[in-house]
Amino acid sequence: MDSITIIGAISIIMSGFTIAIGSIGPAIGEANAVVQALKSIAQQPDEYNSISRTLFVGLAMIESTAIYCFVLSMILLYANPFWNALVG
Amino acid sequence: MDSITIIGAISIIMSGFTIAIGSIGPAIGEANAVVQALKSIAQQPDEYNSISRTLFVGLAMIESTAIYCFVLSMILLYANPFWNALVG
Amino acid sequence: MDSITIIGAISIIMSGFTIAIGSIGPAIGEANAVVQALKSIAQQPDEYNSISRTLFVGLAMIESTAIYCFVLSMILLYANPFWNALVG
Amino acid sequence: MDSITIIGAISIIMSGFTIAIGSIGPAIGEANAVVQALKSIAQQPDEYNSISRTLFVGLAMIESTAIYCFVLSMILLYANPFWNALVG
Amino acid sequence: MDSITIIGAISIIMSGFTIAIGSIGPAIGEANAVVQALKSIAQQPDEYNSISRTLFVGLAMIESTAIYCFVLSMILLYANPFWNALVG
Amino acid sequence: MDSITIIGAISIIMSGFTIAIGSIGPAIGEANAVVQALKSIAQQPDEYNSISRTLFVGLAMIESTAIYCFVLSMILLYANPFWNALVG
Amino acid sequence: MDSITIIGAISIIMSGFTIAIGSIGPAIGEANAVVQALKSIAQQPDEYNSISRTLFVGLAMIESTAIYCFVLSMILLYANPFWNALVG
Amino acid sequence: MDSITIIGAISIIMSGFTIAIGSIGPAIGEANAVVQALKSIAQQPDEYNSISRTLFVGLAMIESTAIYCFVLSMILLYANPFWNALVG
Amino acid sequence: MDSITIIGAISIIMSGFTIAIGSIGPAIGEANAVVQALKSIAQQPDEYNSISRTLFVGLAMIESTAIYCFVLSMILLYANPFWNALVG
Amino acid sequence: MDSITIIGAISIIMSGFTIAIGSIGPAIGEANAVVQALKSIAQQPDEYNSISRTLFVGLAMIESTAIYCFVLSMILLYANPFWNALVG
Amino acid sequence: MDSITIIGAISIIMSGFTIAIGSIGPAIGEANAVVQALKSIAQQPDEYNSISRTLFVGLAMIESTAIYCFVLSMILLYANPFWNALVG
Amino acid sequence: MDSITIIGAISIIMSGFTIAIGSIGPAIGEANAVVQALKSIAQQPDEYNSISRTLFVGLAMIESTAIYCFVLSMILLYANPFWNALVG
Amino acid sequence: MDSITIIGAISIIMSGFTIAIGSIGPAIGEANAVVQALKSIAQQPDEYNSISRTLFVGLAMIESTAIYCFVLSMILLYANPFWNALVG
Amino acid sequence: MDSITIIGAISIIMSGFTIAIGSIGPAIGEANAVVQALKSIAQQPDEYNSISRTLFVGLAMIESTAIYCFVLSMILLYANPFWNALVG
Repeated sequence: MDSITIIGAISIIMSGFTIAIGSIGPAIGEANAVVQALKSIAQQPDEYNSISRTLFVGLAMIESTAIYCFVLSMILLYANPFWNALVG
Repeated sequence: MDSITIIGAISIIMSGFTIAIGSIGPAIGEANAVVQALKSIAQQPDEYNSISRTLFVGLAMIESTAIYCFVLSMILLYANPFWNALVG
Repeated sequence: MDSITIIGAISIIMSGFTIAIGSIGPAIGEANAVVQALKSIAQQPDEYNSISRTLFVGLAMIESTAIYCFVLSMILLYANPFWNALVG
Repeated sequence: MDSITIIGAISIIMSGFTIAIGSIGPAIGEANAVVQALKSIAQQPDEYNSISRTLFVGLAMIESTAIYCFVLSMILLYANPFWNALVG
Repeated sequence: MDSITIIGAISIIMSGFTIAIGSIGPAIGEANAVVQALKSIAQQPDEYNSISRTLFVGLAMIESTAIYCFVLSMILLYANPFWNALVG
Repeated sequence: MDSITIIGAISIIMSGFTIAIGSIGPAIGEANAVVQALKSIAQQPDEYNSISRTLFVGLAMIESTAIYCFVLSMILLYANPFWNALVG
Repeated sequence: MDSITIIGAISIIMSGFTIAIGSIGPAIGEANAVVQALKSIAQQPDEYNSISRTLFVGLAMIESTAIYCFVLSMILLYANPFWNALVG
Repeated sequence: MDSITIIGAISIIMSGFTIAIGSIGPAIGEANAVVQALKSIAQQPDEYNSISRTLFVGLAMIESTAIYCFVLSMILLYANPFWNALVG
Repeated sequence: MDSITIIGAISIIMSGFTIAIGSIGPAIGEANAVVQALKSIAQQPDEYNSISRTLFVGLAMIESTAIYCFVLSMILLYANPFWNALVG
Repeated sequence: MDSITIIGAISIIMSGFTIAIGSIGPAIGEANAVVQALKSIAQQPDEYNSISRTLFVGLAMIESTAIYCFVLSMILLYANPFWNALVG
Repeated sequence: MDSITIIGAISIIMSGFTIAIGSIGPAIGEANAVVQALKSIAQQPDEYNSISRTLFVGLAMIESTAIYCFVLSMILLYANPFWNALVG
Repeated sequence: MDSITIIGAISIIMSGFTIAIGSIGPAIGEANAVVQALKSIAQQPDEYNSISRTLFVGLAMIESTAIYCFVLSMILLYANPFWNALVG
Repeated sequence: MDSITIIGAISIIMSGFTIAIGSIGPAIGEANAVVQALKSIAQQPDEYNSISRTLFVGLAMIESTAIYCFVLSMILLYANPFWNALVG
Repeated sequence: MDSITIIGAISIIMSGFTIAIGSIGPAIGEANAVVQALKSIAQQPDEYNSISRTLFVGLAMIESTAIYCFVLSMILLYANPFWNALVG
């Protein structure tokens, strides 16, 4: 296997694994947050505003870790510095 | 094995694993959210509107991580930059 | 092993694993949703309509991740771009 | 090993694993649904009809993922496109 | 190793694993269903009929996944298409 | 290693693993069913008859998966079609 | 390694693993059954007879899976058909 | 490595693993039974006799699986049929 | 493989794994914190201010470990000292 | 590696693993028994005698599995039949 | 591979794994501490001062283990004694 | 590698693993016993004497399994019969 | 690979793993201690002094195991006796 | 690799693993003990003396297993009998 092939193959592998593994935590985490928000609304409907505001802040924080993984995954496919160095 | 075969084989492997692994988290997470929504409706039927609105926002957020994986999986099959570079 | 064999073998492996792994999450997730629906009906029979409506929306969302895996599995068997490129 | 043998061996392996792994989730999931149905009947016998209707819808949804795996398993044994292409 | 031996060996391996792995889920799932049936009978003896009817439907659904695995296991031993193709 | 040895060795391995793995699920599942039967008898002694009848049906269903594994294990040792084909 | 050695070595390995793995499930399962029997006796001493009768039936069922493993383990050591075929 | 060495080495390995793995289940299982016996005595001192009788029966059943493993372990060291056949 | 390729390949692998593994803990941790904040608001709406202040401090602490991983991941891609030493 | 070295090395490995793995179960099991004894004494001080008697019987049974492992471990070091056969 | 490459590659691998693995414990640990702080504030608002003081001491202690890992990770990249010894 | 090196290397490996693995069970087990002793003292201060006596007996029993591992670990380092046989 | 490289590479690997693995236990353990301290303060504010004193003693004990790992990790990097022996 | 390098490398590996693995159990165990001590103090402040005395005895017992591992780890680095025998 020449260098180009190795770098290409490994980039494909890692871009897949990064987003696949990286989506487990946020998916479950966001679900837990939504679960509790639904529970709190049913329990204290008057606090709907402060609950949903806190929920959205929390979802944004949690989603951010999924975004990190997706960004890295796209970088590996379309802006890979090692691939560019070898191809260039 | 020549380079084309390696890149092709690895793309198949990763497109499969990415969606397979990436569907576990969202499936269970969405289920948890739905479970709690059903529980909250049974407990507080009057809040059906705000509960289902929060539920749909949450499902959208959680489904997004499954979508990331599916997108990557399709990119690896049909818009793979490394495959195109080698074939081209 | 020549390229055709490798691509064929890996396509079989991944089509199997994708649907096998990808069916665990949805199966358990849907079960949880159904469980809670049954619990809510027993607890609040008057809300049967809104409960079953929410349940069906939820089952559809969860089933969608199983469908993604099944689609990919079928693509690998019958519309595999790498196999077609090598055979063609 | 020649190509025919490899494709045959891998088809056997995957048809076995697919149905074996793919039966764990549905078996446990259906059991959970049945468990809750039994619990709900004991708790609310008057709702026997709506409970068993929801149960059957749920079992059908969950069984569907086991069916996907069984279908793929049978395809690999008796309608395998790669085997046919090599033998043909 | 010649092709016959490989196909034979792999058929033995998979027929064993398929039924071994495939019996874990149903065994535990059926046990859970029986457990709940016993609990419900002790709690609501008057509903013995509808409970045992639901139980038997559920056990049949769950047992079906074990049957799928046993069927595949027997097919691999006694009606293996790849073995027949090679021997024939 | 010649073919006879391979088939023999693999038959021994699989007959052992099949019954070993296949006995975990039923053993724990039957135990759970017995546990609940004992609990229900202590709670509702008058229902001893319907409880023990349901228990025996359940144990039979669960034991059936252990039997499948034991049967396959014995087939591999004493009625192995691949061994017979090679020896014959 | 000649065939005799391989068959002998694998027979030793599997006879050990079979009984070792196969004793985990029954040991824990029987313990659970005994635990519940003790709990039920303390709770309902008058039902000592029906409890211990059910317990012994249950222990016999659970022990049976351990017996299957022990039998196979002894067969592999002292009545191994493959060893006999090779030595004979 | 000659045959004697292989058989000897594998016998040592399996005699160790068999008793090591085989002692986990019984140790924990017996502990659970003892735990419950202590709990029942504190709760119902008058039933000390029937509790300890049931406990000893249960401990004997559970210990039996540890004994199976110990017996096999000793057989492998001091009455190993394969070793005797090779040495003889 | 020459040195450049090895260092490049390993940098890609580690940058992916670091952010993927490193995002699991924070995602779940932040979710737990948000869950409890939502629970506390529903329970004690008057303390909304001190609750959300403590929440944001906590989220910042937890996010910091995700940031460490993301920083390392970017360093490996764009400011890798070993790559620079080899290329220079 | 000659036979003596192999047998010696494997004896060391197994004597270590046997006691290491074999001490996990008893240590945790005995701890559980002691925990419950302490709980029962605090709850029913008058039954101190029958509790501690049952505890000591139980600890002896549980410790016996650790002793089996320690005995085997010492046998492998100082009374190893295979080592003696090779050295003799 | 020459020595420089090996040391470089291993330094990259370990710097990534160290911070990735090392961030799991602190992230979850800090989250637990924050969770309980939020719970305690909702329960005892008057103790806000002593609660947040104890929380910050605890977060500092827990974060310290993440810092150890981050420090080691940076040392491996930028102050690696073995790399310097080889390059020098 | 000559025999001396192999035996030395394996002795180091096993002495480390034995005490490392062997300390997990006792550490957690003793902690559980201490936890319960503290709980019982807070609940029943008058039984401080019988509680601490039972605790010390229990800690001695549990510590004994750690001691077995430490003894074996020291034997492997300083009184290793196989090392002595080879060196002598 | 020459000896210097091996010792260097292994020292890097182990210094990373030691602190990474060694930080999981303390991080979670300290978090549990802090969690309980916060719970106890909210429950019994008057005992703030004895609670925080016990907490700090406990955190010191737990942190000590993290320190052991960090010390070993630094020793391997900067005071490694084997490296010094080889370099000297 | 010559003998010196092997023994040195393995000593480094094991000294790291021993303390790393060996610190998990004690860290979590001590944390549990501290947790319960804090709980007991909040619940029964008058028993502060007997609680903290029992706690310190328990922490000493638990810490002892960490000490065993640390001692072995230091022995492997600075008083390694096999290294001395080879170097001498």
